[in-house]
Amino acid sequence: MRILLDVMGGDHHPEELVKGGIAIGKHRKIDIVFAGDPQLIDSALKKYGQTAGHSFHILPCSEVIQMDDSPVRAVREKGDSSIIRGLQELSAGNVDAFVSPGNTGAVVAGSLFTLGRIKGIPRPGIMTALPTLSGQDTFLIDVGATSDCHAEHLVHFAQMGITYAREVVGIAAPTVGLLNIGGEQGKGNRLITRAYELLKATDLRFIGNVEAHQIINDRPADVVVADGFVGNICLKTIEGSVSAVTGILKKSIRESVVTQLGALLMKRAFGDLRSAVSYQKRGGAPLLGVNGIVVIAHGRSDAEAIGSAVDVARREVEANLADKLARLVPQADHHGS
Amino acid sequence: MRILLDVMGGDHHPEELVKGGIAIGKHRKIDIVFAGDPQLIDSALKKYGQTAGHSFHILPCSEVIQMDDSPVRAVREKGDSSIIRGLQELSAGNVDAFVSPGNTGAVVAGSLFTLGRIKGIPRPGIMTALPTLSGQDTFLIDVGATSDCHAEHLVHFAQMGITYAREVVGIAAPTVGLLNIGGEQGKGNRLITRAYELLKATDLRFIGNVEAHQIINDRPADVVVADGFVGNICLKTIEGSVSAVTGILKKSIRESVVTQLGALLMKRAFGDLRSAVSYQKRGGAPLLGVNGIVVIAHGRSDAEAIGSAVDVARREVEANLADKLARLVPQADHHGS
Repeated sequence: MRILLDVMGGDHHPEELVKGGIAIGKHRKIDIVFAGDPQLIDSALKKYGQTAGHSFHILPCSEVIQMDDSPVRAVREKGDSSIIRGLQELSAGNVDAFVSPGNTGAVVAGSLFTLGRIKGIPRPGIMTALPTLSGQDTFLIDVGATSDCHAEHLVHFAQMGITYAREVVGIAAPTVGLLNIGGEQGKGNRLITRAYELLKATDLRFIGNVEAHQIINDRPADVVVADGFVGNICLKTIEGSVSAVTGILKKSIRESVVTQLGALLMKRAFGDLRSAVSYQKRGGAPLLGVNGIVVIAHGRSDAEAIGSAVDVARREVEANLADKLARLVPQADHHGS
Repeated sequence: MRILLDVMGGDHHPEELVKGGIAIGKHRKIDIVFAGDPQLIDSALKKYGQTAGHSFHILPCSEVIQMDDSPVRAVREKGDSSIIRGLQELSAGNVDAFVSPGNTGAVVAGSLFTLGRIKGIPRPGIMTALPTLSGQDTFLIDVGATSDCHAEHLVHFAQMGITYAREVVGIAAPTVGLLNIGGEQGKGNRLITRAYELLKATDLRFIGNVEAHQIINDRPADVVVADGFVGNICLKTIEGSVSAVTGILKKSIRESVVTQLGALLMKRAFGDLRSAVSYQKRGGAPLLGVNGIVVIAHGRSDAEAIGSAVDVARREVEANLADKLARLVPQADHHGS
């Protein structure tokens, strides 16, 4: 297996990402193609005792798509960037999957442009694993690929999310819920009430509406679907709330020696919390609905996080996910696209 | 001043809410009219050493709108409920404000039906105070009154939210941000990109897009506007995340004597956290855009929480908010309605 890793455009230096790529490549016995500035990659490989050519390869690219670049313009104008060149390698079949911690919008636009859509799935969705109190992750799709959705797109997200949960995660008969602002049918806005009707009419294991506060507390479903705007708000609110709560605790802790001692004794509990909510261990978010295995890693990814993102891609390749999603087509057509 | 308090339909027994009403009534020297089952209210008043007729009054109602009742049907069919009768008292000018911990949808539908809209403001918004790391609250509007918004409605939410922040909270020149999934203009869905353009063209202190993770960490603006569906998802995600994080910590704490001791020493820090995120102290959420002062309290409100909700209503009455919102009209018309 051969996975392409874009080492440019994340928040960390390419060297950190090369380090993560080497570690996961050795651990999983997979080839890694590093896309980006060849000199930076080469010196990072050397630093970690590797040379290009055996398990680790370099795809030299002269351009970098920045986090704040306009996605569509970047895709059009930066043809020699690691994102575009990497996706072209995937499209040509030279690699089995593409992983990037870069500009999410550019990865989505570049994937649509370079790989194209799965037939019958007009809009892609980004799926992310969320920690829950039960200890088992749940999956939210879409967290930002498609910010103006039709109800049919949410049905496709449900189909793709369920396929992923079954084939890649190994959940035998995954359930799906609809992110909504109330529990009963009929609640919500026009888009969501329509999506409810469509989902109810499928043969999916649809458990109905799921409210935002339930997702990580009760884990009401294996997969939760939302339009990309709402899913992204939900994801970022979780990140922000966790960070605010730990921020408030830290502030109070600093204020007294007693609480400082308490915090020291509670070190394990805080460690558990950090690990429960850590995106480093959770890795990347698959972009589903495009023709190829694409995994978007967090912009803040360090070596460990980028390694788990590559591992997510590896599991998708091993599960033959691309073929299984392509076979959704007749069902997808059935619900209109 | 006379404030009507609906004591039916919340999660707590009416007696608990009567207790809260008595406390805030005495503290602020305001009359409270309790709407609901007259026998329950009367015996609660007696229990706390009060009799109906002086500062505390009873509006007897024979029906109760339940939390899971369909709002529109409940408003149509339960004319003798505390929500409908209470709103009629407000409409008739017999009380200065209406406070309810009951079915939010029914309060919104009942208010539109009984009080009507402020001219030029076609859609109401519910505003809620959110705790932030800075210690100062920020205000999010709408968190669920209007789940299908046009861009113009978001401008009205901004105008009403700013008026509230200035007149009731006392912020001299309040700023407003737009809840979005990216920082730059042009990000987001069609609704939000259009709302951005409209807000930019107003004379409001519009600071641009605000991402969900920033709201409670950085407090980027005094007021944040969102459509009611997205605002509700954001609010419930915050509630759920805070509860999940404390849940994870509690679970770890129970697992060892050392962490238990640590937690004991950290009691003050946890107390600070609880108080920082407590909705009890934050009280109710004003429903803005209807003709009258309406405050929606949390369904889980206990005596303390319902007291703060009544106090929110009192401050709105004292600030003469209803008149000040009505004067937004020409400006609101200017932006189309």
